[in-house]
Amino acid sequence: MSVAPLYLDHAAATPLAPKVLEAMLPFLTEQFYNPSADYVAARSVRSSLDNSRSSVAQVVGARPSEIIFTAGGSEANNLAIHGIMRQYPQANLVVSSIEHESVLAPAERYDCRLAPVHADGVIDLEQLSMIIDDRTVLVSVMHANNEIGTIQPIGQISRLIKTIREQRRLAGNDLPLLLHADACQAANYLDIHVSRLGVDLMTLNGGKVYGPKQSGALYVRGGLKLTPLIDGGGQERGLRAGTENVAQAVGLATALASVQRQRSTEVLRLQELQKLCFSLVSEAMPTASLNGSTKSRLPNNIHLTIPGVDNERILIQLDEQGIMAAAGSACSASSDEPSHVLRAIGLSDDQARASLRLTMGQVTTEDDIRRVVTALSELI
Amino acid sequence: MSVAPLYLDHAAATPLAPKVLEAMLPFLTEQFYNPSADYVAARSVRSSLDNSRSSVAQVVGARPSEIIFTAGGSEANNLAIHGIMRQYPQANLVVSSIEHESVLAPAERYDCRLAPVHADGVIDLEQLSMIIDDRTVLVSVMHANNEIGTIQPIGQISRLIKTIREQRRLAGNDLPLLLHADACQAANYLDIHVSRLGVDLMTLNGGKVYGPKQSGALYVRGGLKLTPLIDGGGQERGLRAGTENVAQAVGLATALASVQRQRSTEVLRLQELQKLCFSLVSEAMPTASLNGSTKSRLPNNIHLTIPGVDNERILIQLDEQGIMAAAGSACSASSDEPSHVLRAIGLSDDQARASLRLTMGQVTTEDDIRRVVTALSELI
Repeated sequence: MSVAPLYLDHAAATPLAPKVLEAMLPFLTEQFYNPSADYVAARSVRSSLDNSRSSVAQVVGARPSEIIFTAGGSEANNLAIHGIMRQYPQANLVVSSIEHESVLAPAERYDCRLAPVHADGVIDLEQLSMIIDDRTVLVSVMHANNEIGTIQPIGQISRLIKTIREQRRLAGNDLPLLLHADACQAANYLDIHVSRLGVDLMTLNGGKVYGPKQSGALYVRGGLKLTPLIDGGGQERGLRAGTENVAQAVGLATALASVQRQRSTEVLRLQELQKLCFSLVSEAMPTASLNGSTKSRLPNNIHLTIPGVDNERILIQLDEQGIMAAAGSACSASSDEPSHVLRAIGLSDDQARASLRLTMGQVTTEDDIRRVVTALSELI
Repeated sequence: MSVAPLYLDHAAATPLAPKVLEAMLPFLTEQFYNPSADYVAARSVRSSLDNSRSSVAQVVGARPSEIIFTAGGSEANNLAIHGIMRQYPQANLVVSSIEHESVLAPAERYDCRLAPVHADGVIDLEQLSMIIDDRTVLVSVMHANNEIGTIQPIGQISRLIKTIREQRRLAGNDLPLLLHADACQAANYLDIHVSRLGVDLMTLNGGKVYGPKQSGALYVRGGLKLTPLIDGGGQERGLRAGTENVAQAVGLATALASVQRQRSTEVLRLQELQKLCFSLVSEAMPTASLNGSTKSRLPNNIHLTIPGVDNERILIQLDEQGIMAAAGSACSASSDEPSHVLRAIGLSDDQARASLRLTMGQVTTEDDIRRVVTALSELI
């Protein structure tokens, strides 16, 4: 039995692409200057930071001044939620019930309403439109889910919000209504153009797109005011204090541009592997069921419930064979609670404990898929 | 005239030590796994993160559970201030008037009182003891100042605070009184042992100790509760959400241990250079005066006022000769306001605009000092 490593947990972490590390290295060596300093060498570092900002802006169809670099996706999600909500203590916000913890936890510090999802994980638009009320200032819906891979109809949500804004305008309600999308898991495979999506705020995460961990950015539509999480020396237009980590910004920009450039071919390649996996699974494990949407799904995500299986045991046995997969989100792996995402799509705790997530990546091959399905069917 | 680069702005940024980068590289390449994942490879990454935490803890004489990794010194300062103050909305805090912006700015969001400093930048302990009142919960005083290099008597402040705590206990006032020290600039040269200093919270910053930028840590005394800045997946004992950046943590730990190991010899070496610089300056530019304390001073800091000089012009001319120095803190270099630190020690705006900061580092030599003083005296 082979023990060559087979990594199928790309939703938890992606390896740094070699050319991303290469782009970062000058800023981890000679180009170490503080980008806020005034000498020529520091201004050159500042200009690399500016170029990274322009590159991220271009990828998402924004202006450079609309991109705030953060130390990761969780920080960007927190900045979006707190940055808006702290300005409107009397208002409320609406988030989908399957958001990442870094949206849910800050949201719960305010008057937060959960918008339910259908059994496939797609948000219930009708319910959403009823939950948004006259005091709602922010709606946060993730572009694609980190556990079950379901893609949300951000464009439709944006149109709904525009309609409500127009109704508010006519009714003389001048409270803003903003849309935030957490695109941490989406950026590898989906269109993340902010005006096509119609978002006011959007979170990006380098650590999930073959860039450095704790690199991230928040797109903030021009003119929108935010309360910073981290105050100080005025970096990032006053929204994220601290000597800028230019290596991380360059890494994020390089990684993001690269995955977006490749995404159409990579999506087709992974969809083929995904289809193969689904069909192999249904042959080998006929009782297994797929969680999340079949139509509206990240191409790298395979999330299965295999009745009767104890996922912790199976994961250990897969690991012994060199296969790395996950039960749920690594972010909450340390907690013993069943996933809130699986609960929200109607799985029982028993079903949740019989569920596995395989997330493919750039290196995943057909052989890998055959290997993991064979291993799984032998183990159960 | 030589244009070989001469970097004298180590307070703004230090280069990454080659062995620090070497220690980080495995986590930027093969060891990319999410440390919260469950497979063996991820647990090995988790164990490197744990080792880094233990190493930082050992350097400061703390337990590993008392070290929270953050994305930089500014974030750690914000976490200390907001983390305490959000729990006591009716209370106040006292900070010295020469704190870094990442302490001052969050502090100003609460009932914040400024403790004045003497003309040498040392805090006025008598004033401090009068400003602390029955509703003060937090005192934040930086270990050493980033602009003028003055070292604060943290031990004395700690003893003052212990006395006040005891008075409170007798008076039945059960409000805590905590001491935070920003040790970002101190860690290269000073004792940062938390129990010898007597601090409850202490900020560390990798980017100033030959480690990676936006790596940092907050020491939080065991049992102290903090409100997190960034909520989410429960990382860092619930105090800093986001997939851990193990490369940065390893970099910080390696850098910090290294500078602390070398500090006694490095302090002596730099004090000699500092003495040489002071004497060369007083010979060549007799009207120049030194800002900050002569006795209680970081060994790498030289902060001069040279009457009649326009510091912006001089810095450009030095830069043309390859000499990189600063007018004040790079963190606020983009603002045109004279430094709040120089104002606090009694300098006029004209004097502030005639002031220069030279901060030496591991590579600075006697020749460098002779070169910069010659260049300065020729330019003025």
